[in-house]
Amino acid sequence: MNPKVSQIAVGAELSKVFAHIDANKDQFVSRLLDYLRHPSISSDKSGIGEVAELLASMLSRLGFEARAIATSGHPMVAARWERERGVPTVLLYGHYDVMPPDPLEAWISPPFEPTIREGRIYARGAGDSKSQHLAQILAVESYLAVHGRLPCNVLILLEGEEEIGSPSLAGFIQANRDLLKADLVVTADGSLHESGRPVIKYGVRGIAGFELRARAANRDVHSGLFGGVVPNPIWTLVHLLATMKNANGEITIDGFHDGVLAPSDLERAIAAELPLDAADLKQSLGLARLDNPVDRTVADRLMFHPTLTINGFHSGYGGPGLKTVLPHEAFVKCDARLVDGQDSDDVLTKIEAHVKKYAPDVELVRLESTPPSKTPIDSPFSAIVQQAVHTGQGLEPLIYPKASGTLPDYVFTQILGMPSFVTPYANFDQANHAPNENIQIDCFLKGIRTGAALLNGLGKSV
Amino acid sequence: MNPKVSQIAVGAELSKVFAHIDANKDQFVSRLLDYLRHPSISSDKSGIGEVAELLASMLSRLGFEARAIATSGHPMVAARWERERGVPTVLLYGHYDVMPPDPLEAWISPPFEPTIREGRIYARGAGDSKSQHLAQILAVESYLAVHGRLPCNVLILLEGEEEIGSPSLAGFIQANRDLLKADLVVTADGSLHESGRPVIKYGVRGIAGFELRARAANRDVHSGLFGGVVPNPIWTLVHLLATMKNANGEITIDGFHDGVLAPSDLERAIAAELPLDAADLKQSLGLARLDNPVDRTVADRLMFHPTLTINGFHSGYGGPGLKTVLPHEAFVKCDARLVDGQDSDDVLTKIEAHVKKYAPDVELVRLESTPPSKTPIDSPFSAIVQQAVHTGQGLEPLIYPKASGTLPDYVFTQILGMPSFVTPYANFDQANHAPNENIQIDCFLKGIRTGAALLNGLGKSV
Repeated sequence: MNPKVSQIAVGAELSKVFAHIDANKDQFVSRLLDYLRHPSISSDKSGIGEVAELLASMLSRLGFEARAIATSGHPMVAARWERERGVPTVLLYGHYDVMPPDPLEAWISPPFEPTIREGRIYARGAGDSKSQHLAQILAVESYLAVHGRLPCNVLILLEGEEEIGSPSLAGFIQANRDLLKADLVVTADGSLHESGRPVIKYGVRGIAGFELRARAANRDVHSGLFGGVVPNPIWTLVHLLATMKNANGEITIDGFHDGVLAPSDLERAIAAELPLDAADLKQSLGLARLDNPVDRTVADRLMFHPTLTINGFHSGYGGPGLKTVLPHEAFVKCDARLVDGQDSDDVLTKIEAHVKKYAPDVELVRLESTPPSKTPIDSPFSAIVQQAVHTGQGLEPLIYPKASGTLPDYVFTQILGMPSFVTPYANFDQANHAPNENIQIDCFLKGIRTGAALLNGLGKSV
Repeated sequence: MNPKVSQIAVGAELSKVFAHIDANKDQFVSRLLDYLRHPSISSDKSGIGEVAELLASMLSRLGFEARAIATSGHPMVAARWERERGVPTVLLYGHYDVMPPDPLEAWISPPFEPTIREGRIYARGAGDSKSQHLAQILAVESYLAVHGRLPCNVLILLEGEEEIGSPSLAGFIQANRDLLKADLVVTADGSLHESGRPVIKYGVRGIAGFELRARAANRDVHSGLFGGVVPNPIWTLVHLLATMKNANGEITIDGFHDGVLAPSDLERAIAAELPLDAADLKQSLGLARLDNPVDRTVADRLMFHPTLTINGFHSGYGGPGLKTVLPHEAFVKCDARLVDGQDSDDVLTKIEAHVKKYAPDVELVRLESTPPSKTPIDSPFSAIVQQAVHTGQGLEPLIYPKASGTLPDYVFTQILGMPSFVTPYANFDQANHAPNENIQIDCFLKGIRTGAALLNGLGKSV
């Protein structure tokens, strides 16, 4: 793949901001190192409240109306700078919590003692995502430092529970629609493409997670003495699952595809340009072939088709050799990834009805429900965001009509009804969620430039 | 159920032997207690050699040509008393090894310090099966003591590896056909019916055990990022298994039923008389219904149909909540129980071919192969064995055309070509393989009488 390096004409107003960023890069790196010294691990709450207050103070000093707002979980940091009339308002979303740093012994330098090696800062949260939302804040700060004002209105929302599934986010947004209503939301999170090309994601697949529990006799029995007499819950689940997806890979749950929207010609065309190569994928994963159905491109598979994955199947004997047992219970966990037009709660209801019809004795337990999210490729803000990313990073971004994974992006697109753009600043090998997490200093600085270019572009859009 | 208690006329010769058994019952119980004090645990070899020698000496003292014969595993005790011409030769088979006694703390009295409580002897091996083959030996001893000769020729084979799957038995029998060839084999092992009725089993189902291993990518991957792209080995096994048995419970492996022999009208009629009640079974196991297919009696299910049981299925995540993983490998263990006309090696070959056809990437590992065994209900020795059991125990035996479990009975019926009768002497609640294993003294004494009645009956059969 040939990354498209290009120079984009930068206007005088933005040029000055870029010059400021350049002149202050050592100071900005030092500010990031300071921030990374504060743990804020959502799974054990350590440092959460302190970091929320630190961010609220930082934003207040920039002239934002900023607060750390209590929720039933961890505080939300919400801030607004709204002085211009007739310009768009952008919501910048991020998360200040980080994953636990275990296993500690695998870190070359301690996770909360940020260390620079070969142009990278190593620390927990360096990539995911303290460098990324700090870049957005420093972009705002730089713009204000140079011009004394922002070219558009800015809301900032930083949550402290993203790494534990964002349990308070949807409720907080429902309850604070007026506070958070903007014209678009931009999230800097995730990784650049492996090639170094920047990325913009216009939506995510949803998820419907569930467990199936089959039970038969009141105890395990001997397969010789009771085989053919006592029902086998493994067979029950095998036969039920076989009615849910066939050997050709087609999901056959009654009503599962109801309402599925086919991608537009534009989405298909854009997806087809992405560097998603089946041969590369097969080689890196050691695969002889891709999954069924066979007649789909990788992009089609990842963006425009729902999936039904069995995450685990456990029952009976698993040790060496044979044990002639007929187990009395069996458990399966599954997740379905959902595309545009599907709703996760509705899909779970359809799956429940299917199970009731084909295996009425099997219990279904709902485990997760997040709807998909869609932002139209031809959104009025699309060109501005793409241009800003291109300007900030010097490479034309890859456009993903849909990310294959799941984020609670629907809170912005469905609850607040605004377009949502996810554009990562961190290097591909940031090792998020793993030991030796890192951010390339160059990526961090380009993130600040991208944030500034975004503000600038939105100001010029009127 | 109404056990048929009855008196059978006992001839003068046998009456004298019964009187001898009665007069010596305290001495016989004391001999059993002595025997049970010797551990002979096959899984760790403890006491094995000593007990084999002890048995060979005991049989030599009775006038048998007896030896403990080394094998690649534990020694076989083989003994013969063959002086009569024109009378049948019976092979009495048993096993002198016992299960390990764990968990020791669950025993009321120590497993190798036999203790009498309420008419039962408690010790490891009390039921399974030291009391049972000692009863056979004491029957021989009593007959010799009273009459100075046996009414038929007697071979005795006691192995020391039954509890670890009899790995040396088939090879030993192949290599010693001439030594072991008899007119019939009688095995005293197992338990009486719950009602106290004696039991005679005319055959066993075979077993074909195997493992299926499915592998896909070279590592587990994220279901969101790779779902729909990377093949899922759990789905591979689900779809493969669904081709092996359908939801109606019918085994659909290509060629699986080739050669299956339907039971004779006589076998069907005898099986139909057995106290195998579906309602009782459902209640004791807490079942709403029996397994598919639904239109089979319990006796049909247990004796005349093969089964395909999944013993275990393990892959992927099994902890709390959801983990969005797409596993890279999945494992299933199965056993098929086989009926007359099937051969276990042939069935495994058929299953291999089926797997190769429907899921060529799945690996099959053979785990166990024991053919079924059949003794005709109308064998010329059938009436003699039934009469002996009735005479010895005072109750008409229940006749099982086939035991549903598996024993290596084919070594007698197929390799040596003789009819085989399995008739247990131990009480139903003997707790074999469990703590507080026991034998009712009454069952032990009736076992000796049964052994004597058998010798007597065989002597009169010419």
